[in-house]
Amino acid sequence: MLTDEQHRQKMQQRKQVQTQRLAERTLEKGLVIVHMGNGKGKTTAALGMVLRSLGHGYRVAIIQFIKGAWEPAEKAALSHWPDQLVFHAMGEGFTWETQDRQRDIANAEAAWERALDYLSQPDYRLILLDEVNVALKLAYLSPEKVLAGLRTKPEQTHVILTGRGAPPELVDAADLVTEMTLIKHPFREQGVKAQAGIEF
Amino acid sequence: MLTDEQHRQKMQQRKQVQTQRLAERTLEKGLVIVHMGNGKGKTTAALGMVLRSLGHGYRVAIIQFIKGAWEPAEKAALSHWPDQLVFHAMGEGFTWETQDRQRDIANAEAAWERALDYLSQPDYRLILLDEVNVALKLAYLSPEKVLAGLRTKPEQTHVILTGRGAPPELVDAADLVTEMTLIKHPFREQGVKAQAGIEF
Repeated sequence: MLTDEQHRQKMQQRKQVQTQRLAERTLEKGLVIVHMGNGKGKTTAALGMVLRSLGHGYRVAIIQFIKGAWEPAEKAALSHWPDQLVFHAMGEGFTWETQDRQRDIANAEAAWERALDYLSQPDYRLILLDEVNVALKLAYLSPEKVLAGLRTKPEQTHVILTGRGAPPELVDAADLVTEMTLIKHPFREQGVKAQAGIEF
Repeated sequence: MLTDEQHRQKMQQRKQVQTQRLAERTLEKGLVIVHMGNGKGKTTAALGMVLRSLGHGYRVAIIQFIKGAWEPAEKAALSHWPDQLVFHAMGEGFTWETQDRQRDIANAEAAWERALDYLSQPDYRLILLDEVNVALKLAYLSPEKVLAGLRTKPEQTHVILTGRGAPPELVDAADLVTEMTLIKHPFREQGVKAQAGIEF
């Protein structure tokens, strides 16, 4: 256990390291961000970034690849920014809901075309492609097509791609990749249902 | 590769499994949620939950244990809910900023007292204890004290505890635990600085 004085000296040194690090990190760029893994929080963390971007006054586009409608609470909360935020739910539900692969593929392709449209508009500083990784995993979209589209994005635009099953090519091409890992989940272990305010 | 008809049959079966699962999950309860790990997204995913809870009309309290001020963009975005949301930045910065352990400890204790106050008010349906895990890791707060406080929470209140270093006792006591794992980070690898709209 350090004394208070030793603690102070250690923290002074750490402060120097931090200052040095910050000085070395000067690049500004729009990021390709991937939220993957089996845990919770992939879409939720993207929503947090949407909130921050809206707070900065940026325009934001959200395109949902699987869901066919916006969750009412998210819709209510984000209705405060009608001039900054656009939202498109381009899916019709999970694969076990639609039970129709050709229709799922057509929906994924239409969603991707919509995404490309926003990627061509530099005033959209954040584009959230929600659950697009699932469409990639199911081969409803090809990684080549998505990577080619991401290469067209304006320099300052951030793009977030969420969902299980991000292909390795996407991880390679991304700047910031976080895996949400399930450690404990009350659904499975306690029979708890999805909770308002947390999951929807 | 399944034919479209085989796909349809497989998805019909999966739908039955899903329906069964949902039927088994009937419990409603406020959750103790932990976001841990070295990756990004711990606080950000908590912010997404704050947004959902606000959309449901719930009262929300945010208590920051490390930071001494609210990020301007988050503050601007969340200023739309003056009647539902309270925010307290109870820290004075990272340990290498303050360089004063006794003051850090006093701040952590004051933040925890504030948390207990909201935990006693059932109309606060979501309480975010941001970076509290760091205070636990540094032994500024004891796990026993925090767990005892969490046990007093009203049945329907959700509590989110974020930050690296969640102690095992907290993970054991929590309902929903997600580890954010760093796969790739542009700070380190590309010299990119923290980006507006994403990290703050």
